[in-house]
Amino acid sequence: MADEDVLALVQRLEARLAAVEDELAIYHVLATYGPSVDSGSADDAAGLFTEDGFYDAGVGAWTGRDEIAGMVRGGGHQGLIMNGAAHVLGGVPHVVIDGDTAVATAYYHLHRRADDSFTVWRVTATRWELVRDDGTWRVARRVNRLLDGSSEARQLLADGIHREPLSI
Amino acid sequence: MADEDVLALVQRLEARLAAVEDELAIYHVLATYGPSVDSGSADDAAGLFTEDGFYDAGVGAWTGRDEIAGMVRGGGHQGLIMNGAAHVLGGVPHVVIDGDTAVATAYYHLHRRADDSFTVWRVTATRWELVRDDGTWRVARRVNRLLDGSSEARQLLADGIHREPLSI
Amino acid sequence: MADEDVLALVQRLEARLAAVEDELAIYHVLATYGPSVDSGSADDAAGLFTEDGFYDAGVGAWTGRDEIAGMVRGGGHQGLIMNGAAHVLGGVPHVVIDGDTAVATAYYHLHRRADDSFTVWRVTATRWELVRDDGTWRVARRVNRLLDGSSEARQLLADGIHREPLSI
Repeated sequence: MADEDVLALVQRLEARLAAVEDELAIYHVLATYGPSVDSGSADDAAGLFTEDGFYDAGVGAWTGRDEIAGMVRGGGHQGLIMNGAAHVLGGVPHVVIDGDTAVATAYYHLHRRADDSFTVWRVTATRWELVRDDGTWRVARRVNRLLDGSSEARQLLADGIHREPLSI
Repeated sequence: MADEDVLALVQRLEARLAAVEDELAIYHVLATYGPSVDSGSADDAAGLFTEDGFYDAGVGAWTGRDEIAGMVRGGGHQGLIMNGAAHVLGGVPHVVIDGDTAVATAYYHLHRRADDSFTVWRVTATRWELVRDDGTWRVARRVNRLLDGSSEARQLLADGIHREPLSI
Repeated sequence: MADEDVLALVQRLEARLAAVEDELAIYHVLATYGPSVDSGSADDAAGLFTEDGFYDAGVGAWTGRDEIAGMVRGGGHQGLIMNGAAHVLGGVPHVVIDGDTAVATAYYHLHRRADDSFTVWRVTATRWELVRDDGTWRVARRVNRLLDGSSEARQLLADGIHREPLSI
């Protein structure tokens, strides 16, 4: 094999490796969200988003890191975690990467302490629209919809696996 | 290092990278199943299987993509998702790859909407026997067993971690 | 590109690939724990730990593989799995690797069979301190804390995302 062919092979490997690293980096973002909010680490949770990131949780919406951090510091969220709560990612997210943008579709559980066990209070379909922001994957938009039979939750899941923009 | 040694090193790296890509591709198959069935995307769910793939869910069994798509379109499944349901992969699957075949062992939850929370209706041990089908990992056989204390569910999990054929 | 530059590039790729393989190997350890204990495979569960590994589950603590295997074989655990139980990893773990040591922070569910559904009996924040032991990632210390509102569980999660030693 000529030198230039070896170099071309190495460059193809580098591109494939970079795609794998991106996938794991996006897993890491989603795996950081739960521990951030459940520990009350407001700035860590907000830092997963872009400066003007938008989070539509269905039960409320916040724009920008300050508002997202404020939600974590707020009475509603603090009451939850002081009484026992866990925001748990469901399995491995479905990730589609396209250059410097990506969409992750994933389930989240919100468990609450109840007597001597836990209540599964919310199970949501969540969509994470990420951008490569100065070399780091950050969340530009996140949308949750409760899996209570609503068509919006089903549409959010379908848009994710069909690699379509969010249509709800 | 001589040129041929560099080439051999690059080829070893390519094989290691391909193994990593296979692992993530198999994660992706399992991460696609839930969003497919919970959005009623029958063809997407069926397309995860080989043409004659077999799915034994414990509570029913279907052979081939047409039957699997029919299950998703059927009244039982439609009733579930219209009332609020989520088929959620439990954590990261345990994956063993052997050339063009692989076995993934994983938990799945089936949550159902109930009043203002969710019921964990089923927790299953699931085994996914995958084949590389024209370059894409597809499911040749999937078997679920409810974790209700039955020996079959325990055996399915043990077979997975012991890298053995399914013995139930 | 000069030969030595190609070699340097290949060596950088190898280091990046090794980091990816480490991350997946650590996922695999956590993905093996549940199927091991839920199938009663005591030696497999114990083998995930180093010879003198320490497991503090909050409700009990065990030192070394013999004690950990003994816990799996013991009446408490056997009663659980014979009546239907599942130790399910929550999503993808948050992993930080530093050379031959690593910390994984993850949620675990413990589901128990109850009539015709399941009870989420325990949701824990778990910390896994791993070491590269003769080429294999093994658990030197694992600590669980119930997410019942206690500060220890929140601190465990915060220590994980802040890349700090466990401070509880």
